[in-house]
Amino acid sequence: MLIARVIGEVVATRKHSSHEGLKLLLVQPLNLDGTDRGDAVVAVDAVQAGLGEKVLLTLEGFSAFSSVGRLMTPIETAVIGIIDHVELLEGTEA
Amino acid sequence: MLIARVIGEVVATRKHSSHEGLKLLLVQPLNLDGTDRGDAVVAVDAVQAGLGEKVLLTLEGFSAFSSVGRLMTPIETAVIGIIDHVELLEGTEA
Amino acid sequence: MLIARVIGEVVATRKHSSHEGLKLLLVQPLNLDGTDRGDAVVAVDAVQAGLGEKVLLTLEGFSAFSSVGRLMTPIETAVIGIIDHVELLEGTEA
Amino acid sequence: MLIARVIGEVVATRKHSSHEGLKLLLVQPLNLDGTDRGDAVVAVDAVQAGLGEKVLLTLEGFSAFSSVGRLMTPIETAVIGIIDHVELLEGTEA
Amino acid sequence: MLIARVIGEVVATRKHSSHEGLKLLLVQPLNLDGTDRGDAVVAVDAVQAGLGEKVLLTLEGFSAFSSVGRLMTPIETAVIGIIDHVELLEGTEA
Repeated sequence: MLIARVIGEVVATRKHSSHEGLKLLLVQPLNLDGTDRGDAVVAVDAVQAGLGEKVLLTLEGFSAFSSVGRLMTPIETAVIGIIDHVELLEGTEA
Repeated sequence: MLIARVIGEVVATRKHSSHEGLKLLLVQPLNLDGTDRGDAVVAVDAVQAGLGEKVLLTLEGFSAFSSVGRLMTPIETAVIGIIDHVELLEGTEA
Repeated sequence: MLIARVIGEVVATRKHSSHEGLKLLLVQPLNLDGTDRGDAVVAVDAVQAGLGEKVLLTLEGFSAFSSVGRLMTPIETAVIGIIDHVELLEGTEA
Repeated sequence: MLIARVIGEVVATRKHSSHEGLKLLLVQPLNLDGTDRGDAVVAVDAVQAGLGEKVLLTLEGFSAFSSVGRLMTPIETAVIGIIDHVELLEGTEA
Repeated sequence: MLIARVIGEVVATRKHSSHEGLKLLLVQPLNLDGTDRGDAVVAVDAVQAGLGEKVLLTLEGFSAFSSVGRLMTPIETAVIGIIDHVELLEGTEA
């Protein structure tokens, strides 16, 4: 799982029926220092995350479709938590 | 899931029987700024996507074969939505 | 799924019993322009592909072991089709 | 599976219900020479690993959610062992 | 699946119960020319591979835990064959 930030929303009217009613977020994975970790990906929203929030991102299908209670559906990426803070070993916060 | 563009079609006459009747698309994953994200991949078409359309691409087997209703078949990549537009946090459109 | 070329064969006499009778191919994933895409991988042959043929390669376990009808076996990569040709958007052939 | 070091903890109060009671660790994958292998990831703790410990990290959903006995939940990464030492072929220790 | 070499062993006394009795190998994935392909990974031994042997490595959970007959356990990487030799298209051996 990765730390990421919600940076947008993806609108798709023609889509697989299993996606009906789900919100597609555009999320940017982050490195620990807050810089971008690769490019943004599209993820299903499982925790009603808001734009700009720092979130926990899962990148695997089983994890992702189970997070929205839809088994065996074409969902491979999901936002599954809102991160309050990260405590580092050295006692600092990221 | 990634944003991608349909750039071609792959024709394979000798293939695994579970692929009969499925259309194989050549899709180019895209970065947010529209540039290429790595090289193109081959994906099954689950939403009758047209050449040149901007689509939602899943890259995991479970997601992919469930999208065409064929469980436990050798399908790992699929086009599962047509993207209308992407709304970014800053209020711009990608 | 990726486009690849069969470039060799891997011989392993001591192997997991579920692999008995299966042929292991050495396949080189290709970019659209025909250049190498990373290094070669080892894949199970599900369509009796010949040396030098351009093939469709799946890189995920579920897809791979289902292609040879052996569920829950240690097979994660398989050749599942022989590619006739690729039709690109611009009307050219790759 | 990779060798990694626990470098922090991630606190998320709003999260998917299947994550209740689980501790989220921040872990840094390591190369053999002890240098960082990419950036840190977030993992569920299955063995009560302590901060600073060298651990065995699994990066796949099936492996990860089974390690904490919660099937089909959005968990894709987990700490599943504490590493005592690594014996290299040359007789040295890493 | 990849070609790799066994370069060491990982000892972990505190570990997930499903790992009891399994040997953890340190394996270095190889390119065709014998050079290192990324850094070493930790894999379960399913074929009693010896130190220094050239082996067949699977990197996916389903493949890996089925190779040691333990379903739904936190095992994602396994050594599943000993490679005798690799026959390349050009008639050379790697």
